Amino acid sequence: MSDFTLDPLLAAESVPLAPLALCEARLFDDSRFPWLVLVPRKAGLVELIDLDPRERMAVTEDIAQAAEALKAVTQCYKLNVAALGNQVRQLHIHVIARFQNDAAWPQPVWGKGARVPYSDTARGEMVAKLQAALGLV
Amino acid sequence: MSDFTLDPLLAAESVPLAPLALCEARLFDDSRFPWLVLVPRKAGLVELIDLDPRERMAVTEDIAQAAEALKAVTQCYKLNVAALGNQVRQLHIHVIARFQNDAAWPQPVWGKGARVPYSDTARGEMVAKLQAALGLV
Repeated sequence: MSDFTLDPLLAAESVPLAPLALCEARLFDDSRFPWLVLVPRKAGLVELIDLDPRERMAVTEDIAQAAEALKAVTQCYKLNVAALGNQVRQLHIHVIARFQNDAAWPQPVWGKGARVPYSDTARGEMVAKLQAALGLV
Repeated sequence: MSDFTLDPLLAAESVPLAPLALCEARLFDDSRFPWLVLVPRKAGLVELIDLDPRERMAVTEDIAQAAEALKAVTQCYKLNVAALGNQVRQLHIHVIARFQNDAAWPQPVWGKGARVPYSDTARGEMVAKLQAALGLV
């Protein structure tokens, strides 16, 4: 896994949160939606089925850990979990907290207007809360 | 699991394909996108994290089986895998074959115009191909 590198667009639009079992957990920098992105630390992945079964299990548990933490922090109405990859081909999994009054409900969040970055203060607070929750679940 | 029932909207918009380890695999009846929907056969599920770890593993392998079959049948450019549930709350997982010239690319497929049901002939052919592929992978 030494040749793993993060896609430049993913890197530019998110900040580091925590290393999970197989994935890097990052906070997507859009204050409209509490949104984690999980990136498996292995080079050359595009599809979930590029993972072997043991790696898929690890990614599945990383997703569950991220989802539990996001739900605990946000008390969201619904979680959205998705591996799309139409725009960024490197395998990454979105874990998003949804609310019935959010900016895209009930549609998916992708392609709904421009990203609204957090303020430095708000971003720092969200990162701290999520890191604490990831450590507790 | 005897009290499992399929959401009426899911039932109306898709047709049965195959029982997998934990999920019912169905073909979503939209000829614009080759699209499977997996529904875990357990009552009361909303989120992936409502599954216990053993069930999550089974669902993960059902997703992989569906994805391999869909890729084999369609030779798609990308797979989209998602558990959203903003409109139908019963837990279900979308596995969708995407192409760079499809009706929504590179956006997600949800909310892009009206569903275009298959003709009876085309639907039957797609079901037969997918059932064969699901049996082979």
